[in-house]
Amino acid sequence: MDTDAATDHSGLRVMGTDECLERLGATVIGRVAFVHDGEVVLLPVHHVMHGSDVCFRTSGSSKIEAAADHDPMSYEVDDYDVSTRSGWSVTVTGTASLLDDDSAVADVESRDRAPWTIGDPALSVWVRIRPDAITGRELRAS
Amino acid sequence: MDTDAATDHSGLRVMGTDECLERLGATVIGRVAFVHDGEVVLLPVHHVMHGSDVCFRTSGSSKIEAAADHDPMSYEVDDYDVSTRSGWSVTVTGTASLLDDDSAVADVESRDRAPWTIGDPALSVWVRIRPDAITGRELRAS
Repeated sequence: MDTDAATDHSGLRVMGTDECLERLGATVIGRVAFVHDGEVVLLPVHHVMHGSDVCFRTSGSSKIEAAADHDPMSYEVDDYDVSTRSGWSVTVTGTASLLDDDSAVADVESRDRAPWTIGDPALSVWVRIRPDAITGRELRAS
Repeated sequence: MDTDAATDHSGLRVMGTDECLERLGATVIGRVAFVHDGEVVLLPVHHVMHGSDVCFRTSGSSKIEAAADHDPMSYEVDDYDVSTRSGWSVTVTGTASLLDDDSAVADVESRDRAPWTIGDPALSVWVRIRPDAITGRELRAS
C-alpha cells in the first residue's frame, strides 16, 4: 500500500504514513478545522510535531474550548505550484486535547524553530491533535 | 471598521470584505472544510469565484453530499513567507449547495483560468459556498 505506485480514484499518488509525517515535520504553517457553535472554524496556525501529534499554540478561546472538550479536529498542510499544476497535501484527522504534560510542552517548545509572535504568550496554551488518520496525496506535473 | 488601521486582539490587521474578495479572486487553490459522518473533512481544492460565492468542481461523494444537504462549509486561502514571518489569510464561512443553474455553471467555467485535471470531468459537479461571513487577517513583517 505504501509504494510510490499507489494512486487514488482521481489518479493522485497516495503517500505512505512516513512520508506524510516527514512533510508535516518539514512544514511550518497549516490549517486547523473544527466545529464550534455549529460553524466549521478553519484557520491557519503554526505547528510543531510531537511524535505523530500535531501541536500548536493558541490563545483563541474557540480552539482552547475544542481541545478541552476533546472535539474532532483536522489539520492540513500543502504546497502547490500553479505554473506546473503540481503539488501535494497531507491531512490529519483526529481528536484535540490540551497539551498539559510539562515534558511534552518542553519538547515542543525546544523544537519550535519558528515561533510566530501572535497574541500574548502568557495567555496561550498548546493544543495537541492526536491523529486517527493521516493521509497524503500528490499531483505530479503532467 | 474597514480601515487599514483595524487590528484584532492578536494585533493582526483586519481586512475589509472587498479586500478579502480581491484575494479570493486572485488565488487559485484553497482548502474546504465540512463535517461528514461526524468527522471534519479538510481538503485542498481549486476554486473559481461567482460573485461572492466560492465555487469548486468535485467528483468526491462526501463533498457532493454536503452540498446537496446544504451543510455548513468553510473555505480558506492564504499565503505566508516564513523567512519574514509575514502573511495573510481569508476565511469564508457559509452554506454549501450544488451549482445547478446553467448560466452560473457557464459563468464559472468560462472564468476558470486554471482548471486542474483531477478526476473525471463527466462525473464531477460544481459546488457553491454561499458566504455567511468573510473575514481576513494579515500579519505584517515586523
